[in-house]
Amino acid sequence: MKGNIFYAQSGGVTPVINATASGLIEHFFKNKKYFGRFYAGKNGILGALNEELIDIASENKLELKLLSKTPGGAFGSCRLKLKDYVKSEREFQRIYEVFKAHNIRYFFYNGGGDSQDTTNKISKFFKIKGYAISCIGLPKTIDNDLPITYCCPGYGSVAKYIATSTLEASLDVKSMSQTSTKVFILEVMGRHAGWLAASSGIIKTKAEEPPHIILFPEVEFKQTDFLRKVRDVINKYGYCVIVASEGIKSKNKFISDSGLKDSFGHAQLGGVAPVLSNMITSKLNIKVHWAVSDYLQRSARHIGSRVDVEQAYMLGKSGIDYAKKNITDVMLTIIRVNNKSRFQWKVSHTPLDNVANQEKMLPRNFIKSNGYEISKSCMSYITDLTLGEDYPSYVNGFPRYANLNCKTIKKKLKKFNL
Amino acid sequence: MKGNIFYAQSGGVTPVINATASGLIEHFFKNKKYFGRFYAGKNGILGALNEELIDIASENKLELKLLSKTPGGAFGSCRLKLKDYVKSEREFQRIYEVFKAHNIRYFFYNGGGDSQDTTNKISKFFKIKGYAISCIGLPKTIDNDLPITYCCPGYGSVAKYIATSTLEASLDVKSMSQTSTKVFILEVMGRHAGWLAASSGIIKTKAEEPPHIILFPEVEFKQTDFLRKVRDVINKYGYCVIVASEGIKSKNKFISDSGLKDSFGHAQLGGVAPVLSNMITSKLNIKVHWAVSDYLQRSARHIGSRVDVEQAYMLGKSGIDYAKKNITDVMLTIIRVNNKSRFQWKVSHTPLDNVANQEKMLPRNFIKSNGYEISKSCMSYITDLTLGEDYPSYVNGFPRYANLNCKTIKKKLKKFNL
Repeated sequence: MKGNIFYAQSGGVTPVINATASGLIEHFFKNKKYFGRFYAGKNGILGALNEELIDIASENKLELKLLSKTPGGAFGSCRLKLKDYVKSEREFQRIYEVFKAHNIRYFFYNGGGDSQDTTNKISKFFKIKGYAISCIGLPKTIDNDLPITYCCPGYGSVAKYIATSTLEASLDVKSMSQTSTKVFILEVMGRHAGWLAASSGIIKTKAEEPPHIILFPEVEFKQTDFLRKVRDVINKYGYCVIVASEGIKSKNKFISDSGLKDSFGHAQLGGVAPVLSNMITSKLNIKVHWAVSDYLQRSARHIGSRVDVEQAYMLGKSGIDYAKKNITDVMLTIIRVNNKSRFQWKVSHTPLDNVANQEKMLPRNFIKSNGYEISKSCMSYITDLTLGEDYPSYVNGFPRYANLNCKTIKKKLKKFNL
Repeated sequence: MKGNIFYAQSGGVTPVINATASGLIEHFFKNKKYFGRFYAGKNGILGALNEELIDIASENKLELKLLSKTPGGAFGSCRLKLKDYVKSEREFQRIYEVFKAHNIRYFFYNGGGDSQDTTNKISKFFKIKGYAISCIGLPKTIDNDLPITYCCPGYGSVAKYIATSTLEASLDVKSMSQTSTKVFILEVMGRHAGWLAASSGIIKTKAEEPPHIILFPEVEFKQTDFLRKVRDVINKYGYCVIVASEGIKSKNKFISDSGLKDSFGHAQLGGVAPVLSNMITSKLNIKVHWAVSDYLQRSARHIGSRVDVEQAYMLGKSGIDYAKKNITDVMLTIIRVNNKSRFQWKVSHTPLDNVANQEKMLPRNFIKSNGYEISKSCMSYITDLTLGEDYPSYVNGFPRYANLNCKTIKKKLKKFNL
């Protein structure tokens, strides 16, 4: 009896995580003689724990075709970090029982660092149980902070969105700067690593061009120096564009955590941009506009990077090839195959033990010594990942994204209490 | 001696105001035998007051070709409302002197309600002076609040951006809602009229689909009812998407003005989304994500609506035809030419006296009786304006937008002190 596949999406979703699912599913259909059923877990690893399995064969074929161009996580994702199986075996035992009941012999987990750690733990637990299964991690994160892989699928598309949005808003504020707003602040994601803030820097080729100030979590925020820089930029160029990571800190304290309270006395949550805006307005008396792109950046599939979509898709497609060879305990990776000017890449892999719970920060030589700009090597690295466009189709003025029914199959086991 | 043209951009810019400039300029070059020079005012009407005139003939032809696909105001805009010429003649006298010195016989002002008022006043002043000039208003505003015209160029593209962004972020939060964020709030522009918030509603065809709650400035915000609705939506569908106009009010007070203070005790500026987020988190104990799109929505030319771009361009092109006939004191308009299912339109005009200082709010029958959704007629009106895509070209991963040099010609008059 041929083994079944279990695939799940984990952690914060990306504009291209469904492209990886699409590569996996389409290549599964082309290799049906090697496999049984293809199940997607509903809401990540919760789908295994709750025995909520979506049989991909019951989905509409036309909707599945749209999957590679659809943002979000089509099967649902989750934020759930499994504990150590030595100390807390219960969840692992349950996953084992569900997988055994449904003859699952291939486990694909599509996620970031925490998810790779989960895959690794599950694989080790199955070995103890003597249950034969291929456990394969598929990388995904807009934060671009997974080790070993040259880049992470999801990052290139969000970088393209941030670069484009920064350029567009810069043209806007420049137009207005003579008599009105002189400063524009864009807040982007990045709690620990500055990869996303850095991506705005690829639009700048001359000192006068935006963004004039990039604030990285890797560089300590110093208010006096920052305000001096804002004033200098305005004096020189008439306007100032700032891109700020949500995770910037001053004396190890998040700037977004700066004691804002509402009229009921509740602490206000999040938002570096309004804090910086307030700082500039109150100290320099200058009109500021600010935007917080939040989920918009993470889901902006309408401006997907072609190379990013291709990598995401190829990682899924390759997953099936690895499974056919019963390879296990690896995370698939992207490697750069030449060092010439034109970026070429292919899919490779690394043992899961090498990956789990490591974060790749922005290298110090990717930030200019002034702490506010990216270096040439950084610009070149990021630009490669944003090249090409991959548009969805539109109906009634907005993108036509996949709409799966996500019906789960009949359960075989008793309910599990999380 | 043939008369020269003066064109200027005014007020908040849009993704397609440069398409109007492009229509005007390209049609000017095709009709050169009727006109002298084409000057663009640097920073709107300030260009006239400061005698800062950009001769379009000195711009690079390739860059001018990119103008119709470039956001922002390529010649600079301004927020400056001229006073009444009876009480304060000084500025009008100066504009008259500059126009006379440069033989300007055609005045195009591209803006919203205030700018049409300025055009009207200037025209009346020139009549008193006995100076022959065609004064033509070209409409522009993302707020869609100009009277008489069927719609305003700029609105359709921003509507398309908001609808698309809402759809994308909804797929994201839906994926995450089982174990993490359950509410997403998008704040959009619209201080007085809810046209932009309404545009998010075109993606919704069933009750369970997002956006679940639209907050219009036309409907009084009631916290208790709002929170009950959020809770109900989450109980029914597992997640809740909210689109809020920046201008929503409770008891005639802006919600964004709700007494937020930073750690220095300064009042915090703007941001309805963080206020609503805080309200939901503190009262319902639910995790919320929020985005403020601000200038991003207003400049997102990368997702321009084709019909909007065409209308903006045709208004400029038609401006030249009106000027050739020496028509004056009008604002050009869009009219709908049929009432069949397929939207067809053409350019028309209305006397400036009919336009100045009026705002077109969202009609009451465009909002459903629950106050949180748009009606079918509203959906149909907005959808028509978002149809078709018009993409810029990309170089190095981001759009290649026009880069004009905006060099001003030699001045003939003394400096004017504003």
